[in-house]
Amino acid sequence: MEQAPGAPATIVEIAEYTIPGAPGSGGGDGGVLCHSYIAYPAGLQPGERRPGVLVCPEWWGCNEYAKQRAIRLAELGYVALAADVYGEGKVTTDPKQAGAWAGELMKDVSLVRQRARAGLEQLKIDPRVDTTRLAAIGYCMGGTVALELARDGEDLDCVVSFHAGTILARDARDNDRLVKSGCTVLLCTGADDGFIKEGDLEKFDDEMRTAGGGAAAGGGVDYEVDSYAGAVHSFTNPGADAHNIPGVKYDARADHRSWARMKALFREKIPFTPVPAAGSR
Amino acid sequence: MEQAPGAPATIVEIAEYTIPGAPGSGGGDGGVLCHSYIAYPAGLQPGERRPGVLVCPEWWGCNEYAKQRAIRLAELGYVALAADVYGEGKVTTDPKQAGAWAGELMKDVSLVRQRARAGLEQLKIDPRVDTTRLAAIGYCMGGTVALELARDGEDLDCVVSFHAGTILARDARDNDRLVKSGCTVLLCTGADDGFIKEGDLEKFDDEMRTAGGGAAAGGGVDYEVDSYAGAVHSFTNPGADAHNIPGVKYDARADHRSWARMKALFREKIPFTPVPAAGSR
Repeated sequence: MEQAPGAPATIVEIAEYTIPGAPGSGGGDGGVLCHSYIAYPAGLQPGERRPGVLVCPEWWGCNEYAKQRAIRLAELGYVALAADVYGEGKVTTDPKQAGAWAGELMKDVSLVRQRARAGLEQLKIDPRVDTTRLAAIGYCMGGTVALELARDGEDLDCVVSFHAGTILARDARDNDRLVKSGCTVLLCTGADDGFIKEGDLEKFDDEMRTAGGGAAAGGGVDYEVDSYAGAVHSFTNPGADAHNIPGVKYDARADHRSWARMKALFREKIPFTPVPAAGSR
Repeated sequence: MEQAPGAPATIVEIAEYTIPGAPGSGGGDGGVLCHSYIAYPAGLQPGERRPGVLVCPEWWGCNEYAKQRAIRLAELGYVALAADVYGEGKVTTDPKQAGAWAGELMKDVSLVRQRARAGLEQLKIDPRVDTTRLAAIGYCMGGTVALELARDGEDLDCVVSFHAGTILARDARDNDRLVKSGCTVLLCTGADDGFIKEGDLEKFDDEMRTAGGGAAAGGGVDYEVDSYAGAVHSFTNPGADAHNIPGVKYDARADHRSWARMKALFREKIPFTPVPAAGSR
C-alpha cells in the first residue's frame, strides 16, 4: 500500500546517483551509489514545476517510512526525494546496526552535509522541480541532517526537523549561513523527548537568536520551536513502538499536529499554483 | 472598518450583562455591568449552531482590538464574544491606567475566573452557540485570564494563549481540573518575550506534565508551546508599537503563524459543518 485511500495519485521512482570519490564511502575511487526515492504528483502538465522537498531519514536508513513521507508530500503537490544518506541503500531494523551507521556518518559533519547535498542536487536536476522553492525535512537523525544542510548555506526556503536529538551546531558560526540564506527553521519536538540533552533547547534558542550578529545586526534566524505534550522521541513514526526502545514511541496527536504545522509553513514559504490541464478552464 | 475586504459577512453586537453582587465590583449590591461584543457569521440557517469562542482582552480592556479579533473569528464561522472582564466597558490607552486595572483584577484569581466565566455564560446562552464546542483565547493579560478559566474546570475544548506574561497557576493543583476537562492548551509565545519570567516556561512545562498525577496516572495536560523567533510581548497587536513600551512590539510573521496554528487547532478540537441554505443542494 503506497497510496492512502482517496489520496491524489502519485508516482514514486527509485532515484539512483553516485557521489564520486565520496569521503568515508569506503568504496575507493568508485564513490558511493545512493538508492533514494523520488515521488511526485501524477498528472503534472508538460513543463509544470513544483517546489522540491528533501526528506532526510531516521537512523534506520532510507526505508519504507521515509519513502511513505515522500509519497505523502507528493500527495500535497510537491516533488519529494527521500535521500539515502548512508549510501548503497543500506537499511536496517536493528538498533545496534543503525547506531553504528549513524555514529559513523554523524561524526563527520562535512560527510553529513555532502550526503544531504547530493540528495538535494538530485532533486534539483529533476525537470519537475521548481529550484527556486526548496525545503528539507528530517526525522530523528534526519532532523539533524536537514539542519546541517541548511547550516551549509544551501538555498533552502525552510527546514522542518521532527524529533531531532542533536540540534546544536558543531560550530555556532555555521548558523550565520542560515541567516544569509533566509531559511526558516521549524523544530517540532516532543516535550518529553529524552534524546535531547538537558539545556540544548535553550542553547538552540540562543544560537538562532544570535546568528549573524543577532537582530541588532540584521541577523537572527527565522525559527520556531513547537513542543508537544507527552510526546517522546520518534513521535511521528507509527512503527516506533515495535523496537521496544525506552523513550521511543509513536504519538498520533503530535504526529498530526506537527505535519499540519509543516503544511502551513510550506504554504507560506514554498507556495505553488497548479497549472490547469490544457483545454480546461 | 469592521470587515476585511472580501471577508464573509459577519454581524457584531454589543452584549451587555450584569454580574450580580460581584466581588470587587465596587458597585455594591448592584453588581457590575459588562459591556462585551458578540460577533457571528451572517446568514446562519434557522436553528444553526456554531462553536463558541471567548476572547479575553489585553490589559487595555475590551477595546477595538479585542472586538476585531472576535469579528475575525466570526469570519471563520465561529460565534465569538470579546469579554469585558473589567466591567463597565472600561478601556484605556494609558499604560498606567491599564496597569492599575490589571493589577486590581489579577491579584484575585477568583475574580479573574468569575469575570471570564460570566463572559462564557453569556456566550453559551446565545442560541447560535453549540455549547458542546467551546474555546477561549486571550492576549497578554487575557492569555492568563483564559488559562485561569480553564483551570477553573470550565468545559472548554481548548484554550489558546497569545503572549501571556503570567502562565503559572497560583496553585498547581488547579491544573488537575484541566486534565479532567480534556482541555487542550496552546501557548503561543515570543521567543524574546521579556514579560515571561526566566524559567517560567520550564515550570509551565512541568505543571502541564505533572497535572492530574502525570501520564503514569492517566493525567498530564494536552498542551503545546510554540515559540516564535524574534517576537516579543504583544506580537499579535498591530497597535502595540504606538505605546513605545520597551519589549512590546507587533510582529506580523508571528501574528500570522500563531493565528494559523490556532485555526488548525480549532479545526481539530471544535470542528463544525455549515448547514446548507434551505433549497440549496
